[in-house]
Amino acid sequence: MKKEVPINDAHRLINTGCVLLVTSADEDRENVMTLAWHAPVSSKPLLIGIAVAASHFTTELINKSGEFVLNIPGANLLDQVGKCGQVSGRKVNKFKESNITPVPSKKVKAPLIDECLGHVECKVVEKYELGDHVFFIGEVIASSVDEELFIDSSWNEKAKLIHHLGGNKYYISGQQKTL
Amino acid sequence: MKKEVPINDAHRLINTGCVLLVTSADEDRENVMTLAWHAPVSSKPLLIGIAVAASHFTTELINKSGEFVLNIPGANLLDQVGKCGQVSGRKVNKFKESNITPVPSKKVKAPLIDECLGHVECKVVEKYELGDHVFFIGEVIASSVDEELFIDSSWNEKAKLIHHLGGNKYYISGQQKTL
Repeated sequence: MKKEVPINDAHRLINTGCVLLVTSADEDRENVMTLAWHAPVSSKPLLIGIAVAASHFTTELINKSGEFVLNIPGANLLDQVGKCGQVSGRKVNKFKESNITPVPSKKVKAPLIDECLGHVECKVVEKYELGDHVFFIGEVIASSVDEELFIDSSWNEKAKLIHHLGGNKYYISGQQKTL
Repeated sequence: MKKEVPINDAHRLINTGCVLLVTSADEDRENVMTLAWHAPVSSKPLLIGIAVAASHFTTELINKSGEFVLNIPGANLLDQVGKCGQVSGRKVNKFKESNITPVPSKKVKAPLIDECLGHVECKVVEKYELGDHVFFIGEVIASSVDEELFIDSSWNEKAKLIHHLGGNKYYISGQQKTL
């Protein structure tokens, strides 16, 4: 079961720098892409930045809709993470190809990915063209997470998150430490 | 031993979203802070963004110098990562307090941290005020890394990197997977 996350805690879903599946939609088109280049950029208001190649279908959809969703995949979705980072949504329906399920979001048109552990819905408040990428700044407007994996504003050790080393190499989150 | 990293590969040092120790300097002042909010934002040219609270000493030093260094700590530096994220460099010398060693960089005034596994030297090319943080965009101008831990443009499994869950909670990189 998913539970609602207070807006001020939503950065905790992506604070580790884990790989995300970004969904976007415009009218009758929707897409999902794998993304490692993201970071929170402000606490108050809570803003999150994502860098997407200027030529990507996702960039076109976010430019048109002004919205996106960050979905946090668990380690069981590693194959899907690989696939959704390799092909363009202009050519194939990556939801079907990857066998992942788009479900309605709370506040935006872009879907959530049902199999993911958590979701952060964002509205674009600013964007910057930087080199060969566009850096979209999203204000968080809704968030939800698996109620058994995210407790006291933190992922617990049962949540296995994915990190991208580069190319086709990844690692999974390991041992937790509390200082 | 550290080896030079080609500029175009330097994002691979931070691509996993691991925690960094950011060093900065201006005239006779220097500082180090823990930072989790960073991401590459362009491939060509290679640009990396870091979000630093507007009030922080590091923001003051980067604003004056236009330079910073990203140092990648291994898991053995977890206590230092905690300490360097808790106190202000305006009040204490965090290099001495944390028992970490500043050594000269190749191209900027800010020091490298000798105990870290790798280093990315950046020159600020743009900055944006976003909410309560400043997002500095750095162009990579030099990079070096432990020659036994970073091979074929990737960290190997002997490199234990740190990820910040939030508050005083962290996890260490786990099992690698190749797709």
